[in-house]
Amino acid sequence: MRFIVADWGTTRFRAYLVEEETILDTVSSDEGVSVLRQGQHRDVFLRRCAHWLEAEPKAPVLLVGMVGSREGWVVAPYASCPAGPAEIAKVMIAVDLGNGRKGHIVPGLFCEPAPGAADVMRGEETLALGSGVSDGIVCAAGTHPKWIVMEKGRIDRFATSMTGEMYALLREYSMIGRPATEPEDPRGFDLGLDAAERNNAEKGKPAGLLHLLFEARAAVVSGRMATNLLGPYLSGLLTGDEVNSALTQIARPTKVTILADAQRADLYARALARHGVGIETKASRDALIAGLFRIVRHVPSL
Amino acid sequence: MRFIVADWGTTRFRAYLVEEETILDTVSSDEGVSVLRQGQHRDVFLRRCAHWLEAEPKAPVLLVGMVGSREGWVVAPYASCPAGPAEIAKVMIAVDLGNGRKGHIVPGLFCEPAPGAADVMRGEETLALGSGVSDGIVCAAGTHPKWIVMEKGRIDRFATSMTGEMYALLREYSMIGRPATEPEDPRGFDLGLDAAERNNAEKGKPAGLLHLLFEARAAVVSGRMATNLLGPYLSGLLTGDEVNSALTQIARPTKVTILADAQRADLYARALARHGVGIETKASRDALIAGLFRIVRHVPSL
Repeated sequence: MRFIVADWGTTRFRAYLVEEETILDTVSSDEGVSVLRQGQHRDVFLRRCAHWLEAEPKAPVLLVGMVGSREGWVVAPYASCPAGPAEIAKVMIAVDLGNGRKGHIVPGLFCEPAPGAADVMRGEETLALGSGVSDGIVCAAGTHPKWIVMEKGRIDRFATSMTGEMYALLREYSMIGRPATEPEDPRGFDLGLDAAERNNAEKGKPAGLLHLLFEARAAVVSGRMATNLLGPYLSGLLTGDEVNSALTQIARPTKVTILADAQRADLYARALARHGVGIETKASRDALIAGLFRIVRHVPSL
Repeated sequence: MRFIVADWGTTRFRAYLVEEETILDTVSSDEGVSVLRQGQHRDVFLRRCAHWLEAEPKAPVLLVGMVGSREGWVVAPYASCPAGPAEIAKVMIAVDLGNGRKGHIVPGLFCEPAPGAADVMRGEETLALGSGVSDGIVCAAGTHPKWIVMEKGRIDRFATSMTGEMYALLREYSMIGRPATEPEDPRGFDLGLDAAERNNAEKGKPAGLLHLLFEARAAVVSGRMATNLLGPYLSGLLTGDEVNSALTQIARPTKVTILADAQRADLYARALARHGVGIETKASRDALIAGLFRIVRHVPSL
């Protein structure tokens, strides 16, 4: 079975022509949803993918990611956790591609971490379903990393951390991160993990992340920390705090499956090793295709 | 006894002619240290205060705040906690004002919250010494609020939180805070305090601040939170987290003395009330003058 996939995020448009789980052809551009106006999405899709639609008149078309957000093509309302491929397939939204052809937008997922509270994802639900993890923990890295609990092949619940965005804010705009210099000394990352342990409730009285962040500035201005340690230190502090919270809040497994590039996965491995937790990795693109393949089989009309 | 005081911060220059603890005259400008280059400070000071130097030839001149930082007039190395007026007076740095007159820069304070870690303040040490609190907790509000433990009239230790700067970063630059609209609904602050309790280790498994911040975005994009609640919500979440950490880490008193304007003090009062902790308030300027008066009496040459 062949199908056409668009992984349409905030900053990138990436599309694949797929047979089973093998990618036959690829197109991509910087036409992420953040640079498009209402009404432009169909044109972009057809400009990039019309030749596939023509060559594969029976291939289902699936769209995933921020394309289903308020900034996207149409809003695809969230499915709610717990959810597996069947529940997600059930609430997909169709968009008109012309010539009687339709595209199907994969909805994001909503969960309620506490009564009245909210967490959401768009795209990572598909990665998690294609991660190969039936029961266990998946971490989808990114600007807003997601810690996802899989149970019997379905997504039971998840928690998002704003780690990546926070790191960028601190480095670009804050008094805390601006003194950082390059080339970086990567040993700062482990010093940051050390500091994060002081906010781990399981190890004593937590110092508070807002305090530990200021300590980084104090260490620099008092001459206790070289400025080339600062960037990796902040990365280690934030990653360590993310991991500590995720393991406390979500689950404490013996291993976590990380969907990330090798460099980022290595940083998670170092943070998780402090808890005696190992990692496996899987490439995000492979997980995406596998996840879509699981979802598409549950759409009766496709 | 009369003396001349400059409270010279990052963005403002404020100077006072003082008799005992009464302010006789005031000048101020936007010549904070952040807009001055090396070598300009003496000229600024003389332009604003030369008439006082002439009228009061015996008055000691004290300079306090970021004027003693690397961005200031000269670097005044930090004194170390615990420190009282005597220890601080001992390490003051003199700068030449011409005509044989000297200005004395009050050093900042350093403390070591954990082995190898660092915290610093410049200016708040003087406020704390003038807070009227001999034994107890003082909170000096600001961009980087300081929680200060006073023992027998000396500063025993302190902890800084980057709360104010974090709020500004989130509101101005982040995906989390940008959707916020005005006029704000102030009830968001208490909702933020509710969320902060979910990161209080004393009340269960802490959810993590980086996660709770993302929840604010998830609540907005999923339609669970009106955008006019978002700004106060973030303020409540950060203030609540600061207060929870400070009380856990520093001390749990029956009351805290807050050095802040009435509006900010009220927000602290609401966060502290959840712990059964009351507040007293004192105006920062009164605390500054009183603190300097305590310090100046320990300088033998003045």
